[in-house]
Order: sequence, then C-alpha cells, then structure tokens
Amino acid sequence: MENRLEQQVAFIREIDKEKRIGRQTYLTGAIRKENDAEHAWHIALMAILLAEHANEPIDVLKTVTMLLIHDLVEIDAGDTYAYDTAAKATEQEREAKGADRIFGMLPPDQGRAFRALWEEFNRGDTPEARFAHAMDNFQPVMLNAATDGKAWAEHGVRLSQILKRNQITPDGSTQLWEYAYQHFILPNVEQGRIRDDTNA
Amino acid sequence: MENRLEQQVAFIREIDKEKRIGRQTYLTGAIRKENDAEHAWHIALMAILLAEHANEPIDVLKTVTMLLIHDLVEIDAGDTYAYDTAAKATEQEREAKGADRIFGMLPPDQGRAFRALWEEFNRGDTPEARFAHAMDNFQPVMLNAATDGKAWAEHGVRLSQILKRNQITPDGSTQLWEYAYQHFILPNVEQGRIRDDTNA
Repeated sequence: MENRLEQQVAFIREIDKEKRIGRQTYLTGAIRKENDAEHAWHIALMAILLAEHANEPIDVLKTVTMLLIHDLVEIDAGDTYAYDTAAKATEQEREAKGADRIFGMLPPDQGRAFRALWEEFNRGDTPEARFAHAMDNFQPVMLNAATDGKAWAEHGVRLSQILKRNQITPDGSTQLWEYAYQHFILPNVEQGRIRDDTNA
Repeated sequence: MENRLEQQVAFIREIDKEKRIGRQTYLTGAIRKENDAEHAWHIALMAILLAEHANEPIDVLKTVTMLLIHDLVEIDAGDTYAYDTAAKATEQEREAKGADRIFGMLPPDQGRAFRALWEEFNRGDTPEARFAHAMDNFQPVMLNAATDGKAWAEHGVRLSQILKRNQITPDGSTQLWEYAYQHFILPNVEQGRIRDDTNA
C-alpha cells in the first residue's frame, strides 16, 4: 500500500508541471496568456455547470475527470496551437510518448484508466468525449471574445479555421455552439478581428 | 432558456479572475508561486486519484465540485495566507460577501447549490468536506517539501502552526496525514526549514 501511495504522490508532484505549459488564449483582462492547468480547471467547472446543455445525457464525473487530465501529455509534448499546421503534424506521436511516461507513473490500474479516458477524449466517440470537446472549444472562443479578439488578431486567424476547429463542437452541444457562434464569433467577424474567408 | 445560459456564461467569464488570485505556495521548480485556479485543478484531480485513502466512503463528484469552487470567493476577498493571523480575523466576513455576489450571478438553483457546497466545505462536517480539506492541506505541504521548504522558510513558519492548520487533515484521511507528516514535514524539521517549537 505504501508503494501504491508513493506512486500516486510521485504522479501528483510530476503533474504540477502542467502549470508551466502555456496556451495561446489570453485571460480576461488580457494581462497574460493562460496555462494548461488554469484551462483544465475552467472547463472542468464549466462541464458541471453546463451539462444540462449536452445533446445527450452525460456521466458528469467521467467528463470532468477527462477534462482534468486531457492536457497532461503536454508536459512532455508541449501545447500545440490549434492553428499551427506544422506542429499539428507531429502532435499525435509526441503526445503518445508523453502518455506512456506520465500515465505510466501511476499504479497500473489507475494508469490504464486514465490512459483509456485520454484516448476516448482523442477519439471523441462517446457522449462524454463529445461534450468534453465542446467545453475545450467553447472556453477559448469565449475568452478570445472577452479580450476583443486579441489572440485571433495576433495570429491572423480566419473564420474558416475557427469553423473547422469547431466542426465537432455542435456534436457535444448544438445549443452551446449556436450561442458561441452568435455571441462570440459573428460579432468579431463584423468588427474585422476575424477575417471572413468563407465567401472566397 | 437563453437568459439562463446568459447567466451561466457571465459566471464562467467572471470566474476567469480566479487565475489572478495568488497563493503563497511555490510550484515545483520554485520559479513562481501558484494561483487559486491552478491549485483547484491540482486538488480536484488529487481527490479523484486518492479517494481510496479517505477514512469514509465519499461521493467523488461532490468532492471534486466542492474543490473546484472552494476558492471562488477569493476573487473578491483575496487569498488569506494560512499563517496570517490579522487577515484570518476578517476572512469570514469578506468571503461571505464574495459568495453573495459571485454565486448570485448564477441561475438561482445553481447558485444555491454552489453556495451550499461552499458552506459545507467551510463547516467541514461531512465525509466530502473532510476529505476536501485533507486535499487542500496535503497539496501545499507536498509542494513546500518539493521546493526544499522555501515558502516555510520565507514566512518563518513554525511546526506548531503547521500542526494546528492540519488538525483536521487526519479527519479526512489518517493515511494521507501520516504520509505527509513522515515524508514532507519531519524531514524539513530535521533540516531546520521548519522551526520546531513544540517542545518549548
């Protein structure tokens, strides 16, 4: 038992490093960008509050656990910006190696369970994984809108890229996607902070 | 329904500010101190992993929700350092006002549920609240030990203060308290990073 607890403690000490993995999204107030741990906290809490808007009934604890661990592999693989095509090409391999090492620190039963949950998130083929992706996509769009599209403008993001990234968002919640499109995305297209390339 | 969702979105945008509330604990690597959102992420995930060490069976989703929201009031009240006696005296009043405003942003049913959960955490009188406190106390002790007691040394923290703060930790998990005492606290007393005033 002491050995099991030691493995668990080594893991929770190791994952502290997620707080150092930066993302491209600005906090409200736009003073700095957020990190993976802050992002995971935010979307886990969102999942609890917004579960009623899921298209299908979801197991909330399973979804929350998935969201709390979904970026742990980035401790080794780094954050891959959604609109960075070159980095996206090697993302899968880098992240699988990270998963081997990080989930491998846990007692085998817990390591297997977390690995399976992370793979389910990546496949996106269950109600929980679909809703988890809806949270993971809704949150940065909300923060980008709250900071007058600063991150979008910095990266010259086009509407077609946002729509492609969010193709799966309505699979988790059509209602939340509709809201995000109307309240966060369209106003920023109208303001010219997102370049509309969809009529090209 | 649109109004309900608007209240929920206003709340999740507002709580982004928790990422700006600093704590006294250093991250592993000791490059900077952590904030409330990072701390909440860490202990929510710890609760899932370590639930098997709770003294009593716990509802894990309830405990995780409690931990994800337990510091939201600090958006208004600020973080009160565990060993700052003057600030501790006004903590309760400042936090109650914060709870009124922040939980009051939610649809009434969700605001009431979160408020009740936060009050339960403060009372500490249920298996979930007891285990939540064990997580909230175990994590900074672990991080302080991982950074060679830097935060303890900076504040000249005495052993009696740590023991008083952790009086309730074994109520949530005797096993985790034993581990923390043996592996995190005692070695730092021996190294002189925590001043032993218990034989005075």
